[in-house]
Amino acid sequence: MRATTIYGTRDIRVEEVPDAAIKEATDVVVRVELACICGSDLWAYRGVAKRADGQRIGHEFLGIVEEVGGDVKSVQVGDRVIAPFVWSDGTCAYCQAGLQTSCRAGGFWGSKGSDGGQGEAVRVPQADGTLVRVPADAPASLLPAFLSLSDVMGTGHHAAMGAGVGPGSTVAVVGDGAVGLCGVLAAKRLGAERIIAMGRHEDRAKIASLFGATDQVAERGEAAIERIKEMTGGLGASAVLECVGTEQSWGTAMGIVRDGGRIGYVGVPHEMPGLPLGKLFGRNIAIGGGVAPVRAYLPELLADVLAGRIDPGPVFDRTVSLDDVALGYQAMDERTALKVIVQPQIAG
Amino acid sequence: MRATTIYGTRDIRVEEVPDAAIKEATDVVVRVELACICGSDLWAYRGVAKRADGQRIGHEFLGIVEEVGGDVKSVQVGDRVIAPFVWSDGTCAYCQAGLQTSCRAGGFWGSKGSDGGQGEAVRVPQADGTLVRVPADAPASLLPAFLSLSDVMGTGHHAAMGAGVGPGSTVAVVGDGAVGLCGVLAAKRLGAERIIAMGRHEDRAKIASLFGATDQVAERGEAAIERIKEMTGGLGASAVLECVGTEQSWGTAMGIVRDGGRIGYVGVPHEMPGLPLGKLFGRNIAIGGGVAPVRAYLPELLADVLAGRIDPGPVFDRTVSLDDVALGYQAMDERTALKVIVQPQIAG
Repeated sequence: MRATTIYGTRDIRVEEVPDAAIKEATDVVVRVELACICGSDLWAYRGVAKRADGQRIGHEFLGIVEEVGGDVKSVQVGDRVIAPFVWSDGTCAYCQAGLQTSCRAGGFWGSKGSDGGQGEAVRVPQADGTLVRVPADAPASLLPAFLSLSDVMGTGHHAAMGAGVGPGSTVAVVGDGAVGLCGVLAAKRLGAERIIAMGRHEDRAKIASLFGATDQVAERGEAAIERIKEMTGGLGASAVLECVGTEQSWGTAMGIVRDGGRIGYVGVPHEMPGLPLGKLFGRNIAIGGGVAPVRAYLPELLADVLAGRIDPGPVFDRTVSLDDVALGYQAMDERTALKVIVQPQIAG
Repeated sequence: MRATTIYGTRDIRVEEVPDAAIKEATDVVVRVELACICGSDLWAYRGVAKRADGQRIGHEFLGIVEEVGGDVKSVQVGDRVIAPFVWSDGTCAYCQAGLQTSCRAGGFWGSKGSDGGQGEAVRVPQADGTLVRVPADAPASLLPAFLSLSDVMGTGHHAAMGAGVGPGSTVAVVGDGAVGLCGVLAAKRLGAERIIAMGRHEDRAKIASLFGATDQVAERGEAAIERIKEMTGGLGASAVLECVGTEQSWGTAMGIVRDGGRIGYVGVPHEMPGLPLGKLFGRNIAIGGGVAPVRAYLPELLADVLAGRIDPGPVFDRTVSLDDVALGYQAMDERTALKVIVQPQIAG
């Protein structure tokens, strides 16, 4: 079969690799219908996060179950399933507590020795603990929304949960990538009263508005901090969603959060010095979040997508074939695309 | 009048200072019955936190209202009152939200230009927003418990709140000082099922048991981390109370907290490098806390003291006169006393 591999900085290839196949009785093989490229894949693309030559990549996909191991009970051949960005056994104390990202039997698609999501098929370990079925009769128009539940929508939701967003919250979102925009949608869904989206990209601002942003701030750095303080009676936002993970974005988050407020953090930390605890201490700033256990959130978010209450689909603004996957990386790296779908079953 | 002053490392004096007096119509003057020495005063005593020569010190006291400014409505001459460790106006957005430590009209006893708590009397600014009256007929045996509400009991409670302690929680407390012990009592009061106190000092362990600790861990560092993991099925504690504020104590806190757990932090950060966000991220560790808004907690904790539901009084294990205040500092610095009461009205 063919799959995406990475060979160092900005060297994304599509290669012939061994067919995805059952190894354990708890595995299934999923034929990928849709995969996508994540902002966090760009850290590897840019050479900041190291990968071995030829390592697989991609951790978001949905598809059709093609083959089922003998111990698998929850899915059958032909089912359409969404894969969260880690696999997990579904039975350990962490999985039972809804923290599947800490499952000791779990792993991350594209880690060494595993299939990546950006390929024709994927061997899914621990299928019963991992995959979520979607109704056979769901309209094709919902597929992008389903795909977003494999990572970005669940991650945006995790940021909102980590920041303690609830009815009446004043929320500010740092980062106008797909996760930040999904954070806007999640905050709206959780009842936030005011949602300030930050960014200077018009197309993204439009999506933020569609998703429920009540205000937009195009300024950056100190100017953004001043602007948001002005907008909030000098106080700042009670809940800040940190969806970037750099020293600069954390500086903004700490600058715009209200004393006693919470920063929900889901941006993978990159080139980050330690957090200045002394600055948080005097102002009683709390932080919550981390790598999102999207598997825990999938059932409730899927129900809302199916019921038409949320549609994160608009975060995808371009589709490429597997052959053209490198073009998708390039477009996201250059910010000419927000988030790119990869379709392995169409010709390049 | 006479009050405690500090002149650099381990140089605590008692000196004649100007009488506490009304300056603003919102002030009162309180004649101090009981004050005490805080673990955080020791940072100044040890020269780690800088103070000006002759600066006042002490931020925990209770006493009798002696003089009342013209705008004060909530207390009268003769009332017995508890002062939280900061003053605050009680009317701003932060005070109304229960975050009096962020009140812009507030301040800290012993900061430059203000009276410290370890003296014969204190000018209390913003008296209506600051002081809490206690019943005239409360028995003298409760005075130490009342005094603890000026800081350590409210701070221990804040740690427990920051760590999200509730019914059924598995709690571990880092720090066996008065705040840590009050954290044990606060966790018990909030319904924790298991409370692991850490420390190797027998007298403190006895108080921890009295306050509700179900387990004691005398090991330190890596050995303590291993021991607590063993005791918790390999998982660690869901709620950790960080009551020290050093790199070492944070290392322990991060080592013993369960993935997905919360660290409630109230130890004033000292000689702390930045928090390693990358280590928190992958494990979904949340942190909450900071400088405790003890004024917000005073009414509910006072009600529980009066009803006999909690008694933090045992954290005090020595009483000195004002003349002997330096001996109190020395005893706490050498850990021969846990927490020392200072009584300005008795002879040295």
